[in-house]
Amino acid sequence: MKKISAAISLFALLSAMPAIAQEADKPESPSPNAIVDAAPASEWVTISPSDLLVMDLAPDAKGEARRVVIQLMPEPFSQGWIRNIRKLAAAKFWDGTSINRVQDNYVVQWGDAGYDNPESGETEQKALPEGLETVPESAYITPMTDDMVTNGIATHIIDQASNDDYFPSNGTDPYINETSVMAGWPFGFAEEGVSPVHCYGAVGVGRNYSPDTGSGTELYTVIGHAPRHLDRNIAVVGRVIEGIEHLSSLPRGKGQLGFYAGASKRVPITSIRLGDALGDGSVPAFEYLDTNSDVFAQYADARANRRDPFFIKPAGGADICNIPVPVRRTKVE
Amino acid sequence: MKKISAAISLFALLSAMPAIAQEADKPESPSPNAIVDAAPASEWVTISPSDLLVMDLAPDAKGEARRVVIQLMPEPFSQGWIRNIRKLAAAKFWDGTSINRVQDNYVVQWGDAGYDNPESGETEQKALPEGLETVPESAYITPMTDDMVTNGIATHIIDQASNDDYFPSNGTDPYINETSVMAGWPFGFAEEGVSPVHCYGAVGVGRNYSPDTGSGTELYTVIGHAPRHLDRNIAVVGRVIEGIEHLSSLPRGKGQLGFYAGASKRVPITSIRLGDALGDGSVPAFEYLDTNSDVFAQYADARANRRDPFFIKPAGGADICNIPVPVRRTKVE
Repeated sequence: MKKISAAISLFALLSAMPAIAQEADKPESPSPNAIVDAAPASEWVTISPSDLLVMDLAPDAKGEARRVVIQLMPEPFSQGWIRNIRKLAAAKFWDGTSINRVQDNYVVQWGDAGYDNPESGETEQKALPEGLETVPESAYITPMTDDMVTNGIATHIIDQASNDDYFPSNGTDPYINETSVMAGWPFGFAEEGVSPVHCYGAVGVGRNYSPDTGSGTELYTVIGHAPRHLDRNIAVVGRVIEGIEHLSSLPRGKGQLGFYAGASKRVPITSIRLGDALGDGSVPAFEYLDTNSDVFAQYADARANRRDPFFIKPAGGADICNIPVPVRRTKVE
Repeated sequence: MKKISAAISLFALLSAMPAIAQEADKPESPSPNAIVDAAPASEWVTISPSDLLVMDLAPDAKGEARRVVIQLMPEPFSQGWIRNIRKLAAAKFWDGTSINRVQDNYVVQWGDAGYDNPESGETEQKALPEGLETVPESAYITPMTDDMVTNGIATHIIDQASNDDYFPSNGTDPYINETSVMAGWPFGFAEEGVSPVHCYGAVGVGRNYSPDTGSGTELYTVIGHAPRHLDRNIAVVGRVIEGIEHLSSLPRGKGQLGFYAGASKRVPITSIRLGDALGDGSVPAFEYLDTNSDVFAQYADARANRRDPFFIKPAGGADICNIPVPVRRTKVE
């Protein structure tokens, strides 16, 4: 049965799937995904639909729907921009705008590209809702507060200081003093404070030159190797948790910086809404693995020290963006 | 002129283009790309066409050609697999095979998916050329030799030990003792030897479980965040230097591990040839920036410490995969 052996060979390649762990001759060394799949329901944290931003693109060439789900960052991080984004979604600002830029190994960017009015010869842009905030650059970094600690948001940082396996990249990150995950998100830590990290799928706020920080009307997501040089230079407001393939597999733009050359190349955005205000009445249900849980500790350790059968030399470490926080559709138990 | 200001705003976003550096109010702080573009022709190293692997996919839906150019690693790295790949290309082994797997934020993989013979009911696979080597796992790592040093291949490592800015990730890489670039390629360094790094665009050799190391018939390229946990576990044989968008923008596979579900989804490979044996008689001419040059040192420093106008907080470091070696079509001076 050549086909079957070939199939196994293909599945074995680069494998990190539970299916492989089950095939393993070393069942005591599960893959990171097998560890996550075995986590009890109690270890998963529900994501409020009101903290989701749901982007529907025009159907693809085959008429198939394209929905991208973004999780917004929790308080107290980037909240000025996130308040703007909530206002923009409520005002249906992005409806009828488009994806305007797809730069390979970098970002996909969307927003209002403007409308060339043939009568006036002017380019008109959509009116903004009232009351958008101008957020200061200082908000790129959030001071560590006692409140964070007492609320447990920083428990992780404290706990894992004594456990090198837990976050092997601590002290070995070239971009900042320390990196870790808390409250379900990757962060960088320095004396000046806490800053979100630009990992694959991170969603940020486009801006002009400093001191502009962007209003939130122009958003982008990372579709390549983590551009960590953007950390503390641009606001990170969330991450794509479902449907990123609808962005990452788009044709690359042939203009400068990967902008689409001409309006006809742009991908229309049908609507962007908060998860609790979808036009179709549906309510997206997602959850993330509690990053303070022992299961997450085991998962992070397994990502940094691959012991599942495919691997012969565990690295002994991993960078913060190679330990993605597991997020899934809520399982109905 | 709202459009123009909007355009500048868009171009400013995440900018690393020389065009932006020219707009800069701090001309003494050029972007990394501006530094590269200003490098004299003498600082570029020609890549021999015989060290290129040229993959032509079937034309896309719009009938446009899709060519991907891969640079093979230099001696003494991964040469057993590379000798096999040269034999496979000469035997036209990949002609009529296909891209079989596209896993988001991970890899695109191609090779012989097999042919289901309706008469025999068996799945038949293409015959292999004579004389393919079985490469040992020890070849994932290459010992540092005096020869490397005397030939200057390791000059970089020696030179930059005294310059933290040069390779800021040295000593701060979570995966291995040290990382650096030599002879135009990123490597990891440990007591046991030198190992190629899985950065975006790296091309590796699919394999089955250890002790299999793969023959070279199944190849993949990285289309996401650097999967450094694969370093020293799979052979890296090259990198895509042109046309990676023809792979990274392919529809993601919906089968396990991103394999295409069904033969109809696979992307046909018309041919794969060495660069000095193209059917159309053309000879691809590429060059890379001499990684022992002062210009490369300035570029690496600028990648790690972004001082061009868009940035407000230089990171002070970068990981090895965020300092890609500049490669370009040879400019006719």
